[in-house]
Parts: sequence; structure tokens; C-alpha cells
Amino acid sequence: MEFSEKMQYYAALTEPMLRVQLDQFEAPSVLYDSMAYSLFAGGKRLRPMLCLAACEMCGGMPADALKAACALEMIHTYSLIHDDLPAMDDDDLRRGKPSNHKVFGEGNAILAGDGLLSLAMHLAAQTANAKVMQAITRGAMDMVSGQSMDLNSKCDAETLFKMHEKKTGALILASVLAGAHTAGVGAKEVAALTDFSMQYGLLFQITDDILDVTGTQEEMGKSIGKDSRDEKVTFVSVYGLDAAREQAKHAADAALKALDEFEGDSTFFRALIETTLDRKH
Amino acid sequence: MEFSEKMQYYAALTEPMLRVQLDQFEAPSVLYDSMAYSLFAGGKRLRPMLCLAACEMCGGMPADALKAACALEMIHTYSLIHDDLPAMDDDDLRRGKPSNHKVFGEGNAILAGDGLLSLAMHLAAQTANAKVMQAITRGAMDMVSGQSMDLNSKCDAETLFKMHEKKTGALILASVLAGAHTAGVGAKEVAALTDFSMQYGLLFQITDDILDVTGTQEEMGKSIGKDSRDEKVTFVSVYGLDAAREQAKHAADAALKALDEFEGDSTFFRALIETTLDRKH
Repeated sequence: MEFSEKMQYYAALTEPMLRVQLDQFEAPSVLYDSMAYSLFAGGKRLRPMLCLAACEMCGGMPADALKAACALEMIHTYSLIHDDLPAMDDDDLRRGKPSNHKVFGEGNAILAGDGLLSLAMHLAAQTANAKVMQAITRGAMDMVSGQSMDLNSKCDAETLFKMHEKKTGALILASVLAGAHTAGVGAKEVAALTDFSMQYGLLFQITDDILDVTGTQEEMGKSIGKDSRDEKVTFVSVYGLDAAREQAKHAADAALKALDEFEGDSTFFRALIETTLDRKH
Repeated sequence: MEFSEKMQYYAALTEPMLRVQLDQFEAPSVLYDSMAYSLFAGGKRLRPMLCLAACEMCGGMPADALKAACALEMIHTYSLIHDDLPAMDDDDLRRGKPSNHKVFGEGNAILAGDGLLSLAMHLAAQTANAKVMQAITRGAMDMVSGQSMDLNSKCDAETLFKMHEKKTGALILASVLAGAHTAGVGAKEVAALTDFSMQYGLLFQITDDILDVTGTQEEMGKSIGKDSRDEKVTFVSVYGLDAAREQAKHAADAALKALDEFEGDSTFFRALIETTLDRKH
């Protein structure tokens, strides 16, 4: 299967399962609607894809990692809802649509996030795999640490890497490890995948920062309204565009190198790295 | 052991373990401090006590249920932090001290709650007991449903029971079941404990509402500042003080009756019911 077909295959597995799992909640209507609004707001499903692909690369069946994949997407979604709140990043728009609290109010947005995190943990528990669960809960904790660093530090070049390692990298790592542990892997694979995830997370964040200044008009649409990123330290603001591109290339090379440790078919992940390096959105 | 000694014993088991478990987080300082502030703000540790006592009543060792007990206290604490936020109940005080967001700001209070919930799930996963985990995650989900009903419903007499069953009852049930499943129980015990928990949760909430109007000056201290409960529907505002006391007595009797199903020593839970019925704070 071609890379783009494979991506669509993973997304096609994930999308209906997210709805099925959300329906486990039996939530009152406002809570259900607010969770569904953000969960089905056009996310790229990167974390489920990483989870399913890692499972397959390690010799497992992608379908076996679906609950973990859904849990990870829910954790990602809850973090965006809380991150957009006025007390946090204060963003009125998310993916071109009004952010959760603009539609449902702040109180309901806080609860939508709390509900998605709780449901994610309910799904994680259902995997009945201790290593998968620990990967997911550790990722959720580290992500909150990253959010806290972002909120409280006058972020400089020194703390920028550490902050993104936690804020973005932790959940990417959790996604890859949850998939790998579903398949069942040893210490050597875990070490290589940890290395890959950290480098890929860095690549993803740097290219995100680059896109923020080079994106087309359409892509910049997401920045209409308040976007506190304008005031924030980014890889581009600290190092400049050329050096940031160099760093992205370096992270991509390091991520590819980490994959050399694998005996299985890493074609998908290699294509993902190239695609991320060249991404236009 | 006398009832009060037993309570102190359970609290003495719980208190240092909460600190040990919080230290698992490796959180940045503001996040750690904000989580610790609310976690060690003088909570009665009711949920850990229910968990440990249920474990013991069902023939288990209380110490074996400690991680679950800590997880439940963390979930309770996170719910209070988020509940106090301006977008929710907007309370400046909690247990006579400034609420979390008054000390650390709203953004950090949101993250303190997110962090405690994430850590709670990390602990739940470490119990390596699927039934314990499911009890805890189901309790966390139902509690959010209760919060949502509280926030969005013009709560009337009809919805009052349902709302409290979710908002307060769900986590009390989770605490009792987590302890019972740690010990290992059958379907008959689970049914009886579910019945007990629902009745005890109701008793706890009704006596809470009664205390709010009959409490001494000192206990009323918690209501200085904004307290939206004044505008809220309570068992006392709907039924009046005398009928609310009748309902509390009825719930206590039903809780006692549920305990008759048990062959083990239910002395502690019987004393707890009596103490809650007569509670002054």
C-alpha cells in the first residue's frame, strides 16, 4: 500500500471507532455535544496513526491498538480544548472553527476536556495491557508538565526544546509506544522508538513553527483572532527561518537513523518523516 | 479498634502515600505546588477511607488498596479545583483557604486539575486490576456528567437526585467498589455495595445541604465570599429542613439494610452511617 493509502486506511479505522467509544460515555446532552464538537472538528488523527502504524511495524495487528489510538486522540483533543481557554492561550478559533468555549461556554469547555480525559483513561484501562496503559498515562502527565512550562516560563532558547519535548513530544511518544506495546516489543525496540519519537516530535514542532510564518493565506486563516503564539518564543523566532529549517532536517535525519534499529518494515514511518519535513499544512 | 481509631488508621495510611505518589509526577515547580496545595488542604479523606474500609470488609488487606485510594482522592481534589473556577461555581474559598485559582491563577488551576486526574489514572493503571481500574474510570466519567447536569440544568426536585447520584454518588461508589475489587468479590457483594454506596452518597449530600443552613458560625466560614450554592436547589430548599432530615434518616436506614447482605464485619460502615447522619461538619 502506498503511504497516502495507508494513512487513509488508519484514519478509516479510527474515525468510526472514536464515535463508538464516545457513545460509551452516556453523558448528558451538553457534555456529549461539546465533547463530540471538538473530537470531530477535522483533526488529522496523527496520534492514532502513529499508534496503529507502530503496532503494525512491530508485527501486531493495527485493529488491536484501536482503543489505545482513540484514547490518545481524546487526550490530544482535551488538551486543545483546555489550551484554547481564555486563562490559557485564549484562542477563539481552532482549525478554522470557533473554539469549544466560544460555542459551549467556558464551564462546559472545561468539563468537555475533563470528560474526554476521563473517557480516554476508561479506554486505556480496557486495553488490559499494563505497558500500554503506563505509556498513555505517562504521556498525559508529561503533556500537562509541558503545558505548565509553556504557561509559566518566559520561554527562552534553552527551555524551548524541553517544553516541546513535554508538550508535544510526550504524547507522540505515548502513541508510538502504546502501539508498539500492543504488538509486544523488547527493550531494544522501546529505546529506538523513544529516540524516533523524540526526534519526530521535534521535527513536527519545528515545521509547525515554520508553517506559522510561511503558511499560505488559507492556512494562516487559523490565526485570525487572538493567537498568543505571535508573542511566543518559537524555533523560528529564536533561530531564524534558515536555521530552523536546518534543525528540522537534522531532526528528520535523526528520526530516520533511529528507525535503522528496526528489522520490521519501517517504510511508512520513513515516508511520514519525509512528508512532515515537506509539509504545507 | 474503635471507629474513630480506625478512621485515623486509614487516614494515617493514606496521607504519606499521597505525597509519595504525587512525587511520581516529576512536575515543574508551579504545577507541583498547585497540585500539592489542593491535595494537602485538609480534606477529610472520605474516599480513601471508603476504599480501604471496603477492601478490609471484603477480606482484603487495606494496604493493597492504597494506590486506588490515592487515585480516588486525587480525582476528588481535581474536581474541587475545576468546580471552584469562575466559569463553574466561582468560589474564592475552599475549606476556609483561598481556592486554587485565587493562589495560582486560573490557567494553573486548570492544569493542576488536569495533572491530578492524569496522575490518578497513572496510579489506577498501576493497580493492575481491571475491575479496580474500570470502577475508578467509570466513577470519573460519571462525576463529570454530574458536574455538567449541575452546570446546565435548572435543577428541580426531579433532577436533584439524579444529579447528586452522578456528582457525589459516582465517586463514592467507585471508592467502595475499588476497595472491594481489590479484595476480590462476587456479583452479589457488588450489588449490595452498589446499593449501599448510592444510599450513603445520598445521605452524605442531604446532610451536607442540612449543614449548610444549620452549621455553626465557624463552619459557615467556608461560605464567606461568593457561594453559588445560595442560589442553588438543595434538598433543604426543595423539601424543607424537616423533610430533608427524614430523607437523610431514610437513606441511612437503606444503607444499613444493604450492609445486611454482608457476611464480613461491617461494624465500621455501620458506625460511619451513624456518624454521617449526626455529623456537625
